[in-house]
Amino acid sequence: MTEPTDVDNDLGLPSRRRFLREGSALLGGAVMAGGLAGSEALAASDNADNLPPNVPEWMKAPGDPMGSQLYGTPSPFEKGVIKNIPDNLPQYLSASGRTPLQDLDGIITPNGLFYERHHGGVPTIDPAQHRLMLHGLVDRPLIFTMDDIRRFPSESHIYFLECSGNPNYKKPYGKTASDLVGLLSCAEWTGVSLKVVLQEAGLQPGAKWIVAEGADAAAMTRSIPIEKCLEDAMLAYSQNGERLRPQQGYPLRLLLPGFEGNMSVKWLRRLRVAAEPTYSREETSKYTDLMPNGSVREFTFYMEAKSIITRPSGGQRLSTPGFHEISGIAWSGHGKVKRVDVSVDDGKSWQEAQLQEPVLTRALTRFRLPWQWDGKPAVIQSRATDVTGYVQPTLAELLAVRGDNYYYHNNAIWPWRIAANGEVSNASA
Amino acid sequence: MTEPTDVDNDLGLPSRRRFLREGSALLGGAVMAGGLAGSEALAASDNADNLPPNVPEWMKAPGDPMGSQLYGTPSPFEKGVIKNIPDNLPQYLSASGRTPLQDLDGIITPNGLFYERHHGGVPTIDPAQHRLMLHGLVDRPLIFTMDDIRRFPSESHIYFLECSGNPNYKKPYGKTASDLVGLLSCAEWTGVSLKVVLQEAGLQPGAKWIVAEGADAAAMTRSIPIEKCLEDAMLAYSQNGERLRPQQGYPLRLLLPGFEGNMSVKWLRRLRVAAEPTYSREETSKYTDLMPNGSVREFTFYMEAKSIITRPSGGQRLSTPGFHEISGIAWSGHGKVKRVDVSVDDGKSWQEAQLQEPVLTRALTRFRLPWQWDGKPAVIQSRATDVTGYVQPTLAELLAVRGDNYYYHNNAIWPWRIAANGEVSNASA
Repeated sequence: MTEPTDVDNDLGLPSRRRFLREGSALLGGAVMAGGLAGSEALAASDNADNLPPNVPEWMKAPGDPMGSQLYGTPSPFEKGVIKNIPDNLPQYLSASGRTPLQDLDGIITPNGLFYERHHGGVPTIDPAQHRLMLHGLVDRPLIFTMDDIRRFPSESHIYFLECSGNPNYKKPYGKTASDLVGLLSCAEWTGVSLKVVLQEAGLQPGAKWIVAEGADAAAMTRSIPIEKCLEDAMLAYSQNGERLRPQQGYPLRLLLPGFEGNMSVKWLRRLRVAAEPTYSREETSKYTDLMPNGSVREFTFYMEAKSIITRPSGGQRLSTPGFHEISGIAWSGHGKVKRVDVSVDDGKSWQEAQLQEPVLTRALTRFRLPWQWDGKPAVIQSRATDVTGYVQPTLAELLAVRGDNYYYHNNAIWPWRIAANGEVSNASA
Repeated sequence: MTEPTDVDNDLGLPSRRRFLREGSALLGGAVMAGGLAGSEALAASDNADNLPPNVPEWMKAPGDPMGSQLYGTPSPFEKGVIKNIPDNLPQYLSASGRTPLQDLDGIITPNGLFYERHHGGVPTIDPAQHRLMLHGLVDRPLIFTMDDIRRFPSESHIYFLECSGNPNYKKPYGKTASDLVGLLSCAEWTGVSLKVVLQEAGLQPGAKWIVAEGADAAAMTRSIPIEKCLEDAMLAYSQNGERLRPQQGYPLRLLLPGFEGNMSVKWLRRLRVAAEPTYSREETSKYTDLMPNGSVREFTFYMEAKSIITRPSGGQRLSTPGFHEISGIAWSGHGKVKRVDVSVDDGKSWQEAQLQEPVLTRALTRFRLPWQWDGKPAVIQSRATDVTGYVQPTLAELLAVRGDNYYYHNNAIWPWRIAANGEVSNASA
């Protein structure tokens, strides 16, 4: 029998080989412990025509017929993978529900787990009755039905959305990745370029802002600089192929890639073109910040570069020492993620993680780093850098500048502590 | 007041401008008909502080509280957007359910609408009890738990999956895009490179095929050339972020990008490395084709380049003459789609459609073409070309070569007929 090394060479196996060779023994060890050493050990000789021992129950009788779910749902064994919602909120009409980031892979958030943030509950809107009004400093004020909106040329893009209060700065800090930054999701959106719709109405001189209003009970209202409206803003009606979910603005929402999530006004009913912002309730009582010198920071649109390790992360447990992939997500409101560095020694040294292609503008980017855990306590963390060169800061750096009254736009590095027994917890808590 | 043209120039509006100016009047006309001419006409003067007339019912009281769906579902107004399943099949254990392509946008298929094809029903598998056995021509036969599989380095890719019988060649032909090619979906998959797992076991000389077996009641079994297993094959456990749905192989499936869907064996329990293919039931009684000369075409792995217009498509109706975007999807098992051409004159002339970036390998690609419908009967169709230079054929071209007994791999162009009243139907029916 040929030695394994020669076989690998015959097959032309590539550059990852040395890494895998290192990981191999340990992975093999885990496999032996979990599989071969158990009750299902392989027969010494391979008999290709026989089923392996222990044919499971679910092979002995037909399964559920095709079409028993006309709209599919997850396995009953995944019933714990749901939105992360505190059960003791004072009220739920203006509240938020988080995506379980630590249970997800890749960059697409399934629509059922997309984060929620509402100011007056979720309206149930009949799309045949819904209208979008475009008025103010335009040549031709217009009212659109959903059919009108669908008549425009369409475009599709994968973009993240993130709440600007994700998370706040004060203890107690959350225990899981979802607790910390679960007001974050990513989807493929389809809709119309807002620029195209504005061209239809004709912008007048002095058009500097657009005030967007939602058709919810809060009439959620935000002012958007005209530059963003003419850059990459969309009127979105579909999310991951199907029409928007009610919680994400059915039948129509504004989508402002890279801006704080609340500005992507849901259930969009009105766009007023204006010379000045409107200073609505949601841009005065909320979504502004008091600086230590008493000045107010307002219109803080962009979500800055950020990242978090989702696996391993708080609440999880490493079963054994040995090979563990470190995996997480990174994003920036300013464009593409350029690099992500990971430290496994409490910030003393950093290694560049691999980014999963394609790396897309203003989308989540999945990063990964192979890691051999030696079984000793460790602190791991990730740090994103975006195309502008901006580097994700530490919490201490942010707090030093922003002071005690700051609430929004916390894009700090969040380190995880791994105990000797493998338990993972928030190292800042 | 400045003329609109000057305003546009002030704003630096770009290259799409001329197209939009052409479309503009017609779109405006549609908008006028649907909006301004209706009951909701705008007041002559814009009063920024007033809500527009007819504040809808759903703004007058709070909506559903946040978290009323811990796992979200579509709007009740989208209840008709479900999998396309005939209600008169002789049985449903070995049957298929189609994705409603004509109702979807972009390239991602939401998991709830991903197509289904089963041979023995859908098993309900406890992931803690599930095992994958890897044996045959390997140095170290292994049994993996799902935890073992999750320990390997992971990767994520957006790939399409398509059934090889999508559709067959015989009349009656389907009425809608879903009827015709709805055994087609696309998702972001996360899992382990099969090559990495094979390296763990160590391939022996003579390893030329891998026989994959599913843990369903049909023990669905297919033989895969070793070259594909070492190229881009994955063991996938997640789909669009969350774990696989039961209908798509929970908790583990093989994923062979670009190959006919049934080879991406679901509920994967066994990989046997062998010198020869196994000639299983599903590669003899099914998934082979009889040629006119009496020979059999077997192991027809690759799904060839293909496309279809999804909007407008069969069963839809153009409301008025004027601007309509033609939009559809294209794909190829051999790699990226290079171009898509669209004809609006029954194949007499063709125009190159715009492809939505990013164009990904072995993923769906969304294409679009602006079109002014003159209100006369028309036949529209799309034709894909992939990176190999292969061009999607007509049905007549396929039938001429393949004869009466051929069943699988029908990648023909499917033209849609548009009647003077705007109704769209299958032009081949």
